Amino acid sequence: MAENGAKPIRLGMVGGGTGAFIGQVHRIASRIDGDFELVAGALSSRPEVARESGKNLGLAEDRIYTSYEEMAKSEAARPDGIQAVSIVTPNHMHFGPTKAFLEAGIHVICDKPITSSLDDARKLTDIKPANGAKFLLTHNYTGYPLIRQARELVASGALGNIRVVQAEYAQDWLTEAADADNKQAAWRTDPSRSGAGGCIGDIGTHAYNLLRFVTGLKTEAVSADLTAFVPGRQLDDNVHIMLRFEGGAKGMLWASQVAVGKENGLQLRVYGDKGGLEWSQENPNYMWFTEFGKPRQLLTRGGSISVPPAASMNVRIPAGHPEGYLEAFATLYSQFAAVIRGEGAEFESLLPTMADGIEGMQFITASVNSSQNDSKWTRFADV
Amino acid sequence: MAENGAKPIRLGMVGGGTGAFIGQVHRIASRIDGDFELVAGALSSRPEVARESGKNLGLAEDRIYTSYEEMAKSEAARPDGIQAVSIVTPNHMHFGPTKAFLEAGIHVICDKPITSSLDDARKLTDIKPANGAKFLLTHNYTGYPLIRQARELVASGALGNIRVVQAEYAQDWLTEAADADNKQAAWRTDPSRSGAGGCIGDIGTHAYNLLRFVTGLKTEAVSADLTAFVPGRQLDDNVHIMLRFEGGAKGMLWASQVAVGKENGLQLRVYGDKGGLEWSQENPNYMWFTEFGKPRQLLTRGGSISVPPAASMNVRIPAGHPEGYLEAFATLYSQFAAVIRGEGAEFESLLPTMADGIEGMQFITASVNSSQNDSKWTRFADV
Amino acid sequence: MAENGAKPIRLGMVGGGTGAFIGQVHRIASRIDGDFELVAGALSSRPEVARESGKNLGLAEDRIYTSYEEMAKSEAARPDGIQAVSIVTPNHMHFGPTKAFLEAGIHVICDKPITSSLDDARKLTDIKPANGAKFLLTHNYTGYPLIRQARELVASGALGNIRVVQAEYAQDWLTEAADADNKQAAWRTDPSRSGAGGCIGDIGTHAYNLLRFVTGLKTEAVSADLTAFVPGRQLDDNVHIMLRFEGGAKGMLWASQVAVGKENGLQLRVYGDKGGLEWSQENPNYMWFTEFGKPRQLLTRGGSISVPPAASMNVRIPAGHPEGYLEAFATLYSQFAAVIRGEGAEFESLLPTMADGIEGMQFITASVNSSQNDSKWTRFADV
Amino acid sequence: MAENGAKPIRLGMVGGGTGAFIGQVHRIASRIDGDFELVAGALSSRPEVARESGKNLGLAEDRIYTSYEEMAKSEAARPDGIQAVSIVTPNHMHFGPTKAFLEAGIHVICDKPITSSLDDARKLTDIKPANGAKFLLTHNYTGYPLIRQARELVASGALGNIRVVQAEYAQDWLTEAADADNKQAAWRTDPSRSGAGGCIGDIGTHAYNLLRFVTGLKTEAVSADLTAFVPGRQLDDNVHIMLRFEGGAKGMLWASQVAVGKENGLQLRVYGDKGGLEWSQENPNYMWFTEFGKPRQLLTRGGSISVPPAASMNVRIPAGHPEGYLEAFATLYSQFAAVIRGEGAEFESLLPTMADGIEGMQFITASVNSSQNDSKWTRFADV
Repeated sequence: MAENGAKPIRLGMVGGGTGAFIGQVHRIASRIDGDFELVAGALSSRPEVARESGKNLGLAEDRIYTSYEEMAKSEAARPDGIQAVSIVTPNHMHFGPTKAFLEAGIHVICDKPITSSLDDARKLTDIKPANGAKFLLTHNYTGYPLIRQARELVASGALGNIRVVQAEYAQDWLTEAADADNKQAAWRTDPSRSGAGGCIGDIGTHAYNLLRFVTGLKTEAVSADLTAFVPGRQLDDNVHIMLRFEGGAKGMLWASQVAVGKENGLQLRVYGDKGGLEWSQENPNYMWFTEFGKPRQLLTRGGSISVPPAASMNVRIPAGHPEGYLEAFATLYSQFAAVIRGEGAEFESLLPTMADGIEGMQFITASVNSSQNDSKWTRFADV
Repeated sequence: MAENGAKPIRLGMVGGGTGAFIGQVHRIASRIDGDFELVAGALSSRPEVARESGKNLGLAEDRIYTSYEEMAKSEAARPDGIQAVSIVTPNHMHFGPTKAFLEAGIHVICDKPITSSLDDARKLTDIKPANGAKFLLTHNYTGYPLIRQARELVASGALGNIRVVQAEYAQDWLTEAADADNKQAAWRTDPSRSGAGGCIGDIGTHAYNLLRFVTGLKTEAVSADLTAFVPGRQLDDNVHIMLRFEGGAKGMLWASQVAVGKENGLQLRVYGDKGGLEWSQENPNYMWFTEFGKPRQLLTRGGSISVPPAASMNVRIPAGHPEGYLEAFATLYSQFAAVIRGEGAEFESLLPTMADGIEGMQFITASVNSSQNDSKWTRFADV
Repeated sequence: MAENGAKPIRLGMVGGGTGAFIGQVHRIASRIDGDFELVAGALSSRPEVARESGKNLGLAEDRIYTSYEEMAKSEAARPDGIQAVSIVTPNHMHFGPTKAFLEAGIHVICDKPITSSLDDARKLTDIKPANGAKFLLTHNYTGYPLIRQARELVASGALGNIRVVQAEYAQDWLTEAADADNKQAAWRTDPSRSGAGGCIGDIGTHAYNLLRFVTGLKTEAVSADLTAFVPGRQLDDNVHIMLRFEGGAKGMLWASQVAVGKENGLQLRVYGDKGGLEWSQENPNYMWFTEFGKPRQLLTRGGSISVPPAASMNVRIPAGHPEGYLEAFATLYSQFAAVIRGEGAEFESLLPTMADGIEGMQFITASVNSSQNDSKWTRFADV
Repeated sequence: MAENGAKPIRLGMVGGGTGAFIGQVHRIASRIDGDFELVAGALSSRPEVARESGKNLGLAEDRIYTSYEEMAKSEAARPDGIQAVSIVTPNHMHFGPTKAFLEAGIHVICDKPITSSLDDARKLTDIKPANGAKFLLTHNYTGYPLIRQARELVASGALGNIRVVQAEYAQDWLTEAADADNKQAAWRTDPSRSGAGGCIGDIGTHAYNLLRFVTGLKTEAVSADLTAFVPGRQLDDNVHIMLRFEGGAKGMLWASQVAVGKENGLQLRVYGDKGGLEWSQENPNYMWFTEFGKPRQLLTRGGSISVPPAASMNVRIPAGHPEGYLEAFATLYSQFAAVIRGEGAEFESLLPTMADGIEGMQFITASVNSSQNDSKWTRFADV
């Protein structure tokens, strides 16, 4: 139950059956602020997994589906049908459900990257959502309160003109060839399910989206060097990219899934001619902010700051009481709920959109192309 | 909805109306794992606040109460009545509801400290819960995964015989006299609502409980020096305590609400003759563990470790994806739900009990007595 | 050679033969800024060690002594005799040389604690130094630039009235009984050479001196609980102390040599009614400074600060280029050199004196007495 | 005086007059271990500055020169002439003195980068040193004990095959256009004195040398994007480089002097298929080392380690007593002293050589060329 008197939004889920990782994350995120209630699901295409998973989640028998098309049709027809759906399947299975539900007038919450190819992504714009159905892409790291604060700091001019951006996202869980039975690893390293990008699509897009969200800089071109280090791996597991932005700012982006010792090392550093800031996802309640010539300040989520707090941040508990990944994820859900209810106008410009998803696919495609062209600078405009 | 097929437990709440802090924390904690559904409340003794708050939380009109006695009676009589209740009132209002609900056969989840006096606490043992109603004290910091890990490390002998314990809990929010309209500050600094301890009751008990939970050491005596630094303040806002444990271990405990720069600095450090560990609540996904003569290791929640993971920890998302305060709190809720359902035998020895609450009051009372006696060593056995 | 045109001061050393630790530290410290030149030594009472050690240090044969008395007499008689001497023997061998050299008109640089007993320390005041010979006690941690800065911050009122001081000095190298051939451990754990305090004298005095140096608070009384954890150890290896200062401030001090995982963990935290600061010796180029209600600032040695830099700090290289233990030690040497040359008036109030040494012995004695009296509050005035 | 009985080596200095930064660093470094004694200098080409500076350093009148050629000639002719010389002039003034002193049979210690152009650097190999005179390039960061340890860890195979190297060196002191009277900034941003590289030569070469020293990887090619952000600046102040190494490893290197909040942020991270390590110069006594699938370990300078200590590291004081920049610099001096005395065979492969200097110039030249060619991959073999 939400805390503001609103009735929970009826939610469905596509994917996320037993054994999946991101499905559970979406469910917890949907519950934290009480804005959603899960009532239907096509949790797996395998009937027995779908049924078992649905039962565990307390779904009524007749709302456990094995096909998203059927689910879209049936739910749209029910008076108590779902109002929104979460799509948490592998990348190549994002496009179909997105189209089906939007056209059925059901709001869509879709995991990233938005599709497995830029072509598919562009076709999304042809979809005609019924009844004003809306779309949310879960670039969840943008939900962290201090990332919202960072965005407002940049926008306020506190950093001056941005010159340099350093983004990185390093993990080590794919350091060795994955066992065949590691579901998470299997589809992520398989071009037929992930698309042309491996590490770059799985986590590189998060780092890219984060730098775009915070800085607002528009990307001109990338020069990339993608590598598959693990013998036999078909997709990149390490990504080196240089970036050029409109107006002259420059950046570097490193993404890796073979950096031993890194768990989920997403980090963003931004430097302008007046100030700098640094934030790291693994300890997300803190952010360094420096005005040139003054001591570094450690801003805290919900804590004392020398600058106005971000209007858009969702701080549930006081400074010093750490919030984490799930709360940031939940902020996207609850602010999307507000948008659905027509009460979230101030959030609309903040929530990741279809356009962000398409740009993410441009980022992947331009980088893959550049890497295949001896790191030639490749313009987004040219892919 | 829980993730294991169980129906949510019907929950009520006493206290926690609009403007309260800890009530919302309990509600979020109850939702995260889907094990509870809030359906009734005596959220305030002021009728209009109770009604407004209840409506915002989606409670049915007839389940919004202004008296906990009435609520206990009515709910116990309903076929769909609450199965458990969360008590989130100020300290002096813990005893009454606890007694009323337990005797009505309704499970009780009570905020800490358990009462506002040791006498009240001891009277709790006279209560005869109906229908096997159970009691949970929300010493929420014990729900952090790495605190569970720490407890198992100590129990496994990995630290050898414990010699020294350093516990501290430092904040700065009461550095200045609080405004009259700061509800949170008002009751915490008022002896009639807080009891004989100020800072020691509010946060000292957390630090004390944490060291007891992790080390299992039994306290023999304390020597305390409590101070009220802010002019006009009636209760301590800074606490210095030396501890002696059975078997010869020694400890120090510092609690403060006037330590400028500290937000919620709960920290525990334990040293034995073979190893040491250090953990800090503000960055709770990391814990230092050192075996004597070897390099320090940084253990991570859910990450690689050189020792078996704690069986009792609730890790929802992988290492590197930070969980925080709310998730730790939720772990108490969900493991108590398992106990209520008869499926949580392995958690019973871990969840904070009435006995822990009574010991907390002994800690406060012995410390206050010692401080009033020029820091004379005061035995728990003598209070 | 000093960098300011002054001729190096001719230096002798008592103790510090091959295998000693602190002797080499003093020698490096004496060289860093070029203010001293080592020309004589009574490096050991064992002739062959004295000779071998002296030769290795390039001393002339006739200036290698085996008795400090002889050295004081001979050197005082030479036209090119030493102008200053460093005393780096175990504690019980500080008094004799100090008296001999001061009375011979030779400046004394003495390691801490000043003596092995309070009685000896008090007798120091009876010494009549010839020719204005001066005395320096090497409480070397006061030489760190940020400690000087901390002292000036407190003195400037930036922290307001000091309320709480937390000092600690934790190591782990005496976690187990030391081998007989560990010279460093042997004398430190032997009452006949160390005096009545073990850990409290060896490192507790450093923590105590540091808090006094920074805060300027005057100690009223201590309540102490000293423990020897290692079986068979005759002197304390863990120290818990509560402090009361004139004017109402309170403190805690923890010193330990059995805290597994701690290398040289000297830490000072000071909180006033307007601000707080925190500094840790193991990363000494950084200090946290918080003004109440504002974000924490990380001050750096020689870096940007929002407050005037300390006039007395010796910053050799720019911020970001770490200076360490040896440089802080060298600052005492070079500022004492300035005092010797009559050019260091501004340093005289900063350099640790005989009075500081006597107070250190009061601290040890009052703490040992308190601990033997069931932690009874013991006034410095009463020891 | 050295601590091993050897007589100090007679040292001269070219450059380093009053107001210079790096000259004083070299002098302190030469004194710390007592292996050198400064006796002559051509400290400035301006006679009055040379004289004043020489007097302050205690040089005899007849050994204060204003021309390095004259100094080389005169000193070589004296029976007590200098045995070694430190060259601490701006880059374009390295070649001349190096040639003059080596050909005079005097050992040379030269600041980096080795020259201001690759052509000059290559001409160095034509020099015929007299009397076996040796050359040391002060890539001082290689003197840090943990960097030596890192090198041995990689060489031992503890990290497996190296895959990814991330090097960075970020400062902020050139964020704004420097005042005309800032000597340090003036020559570094002037192509006629610095050469074709600004930031890349001043600090990029340090980062590059460090990664080469630790990993031993051989560079194949670079793709670079150099920028001068500050209006009017003629040389780069921000450097983005991707690297490819022989054998397939990849790297990124970021150097910046406009990264607000960074003081001297030199950082190296190395990842292999078995392990990873991370080290940061601003807190140089610590290094992260992770074996895949195990917890991160925090190695400390001189502390407990799970791997053999590096034979070549110079640890003066125990773990927990921080050593810094000056000590690392001093290690190059003292190990070069050992080489000069014929006692340092084990150090010869570690001390930075003329070849390292030439490779540094290749790095600058290849990067500048690549940047001018739209970041085209540029082979070292082709410059």
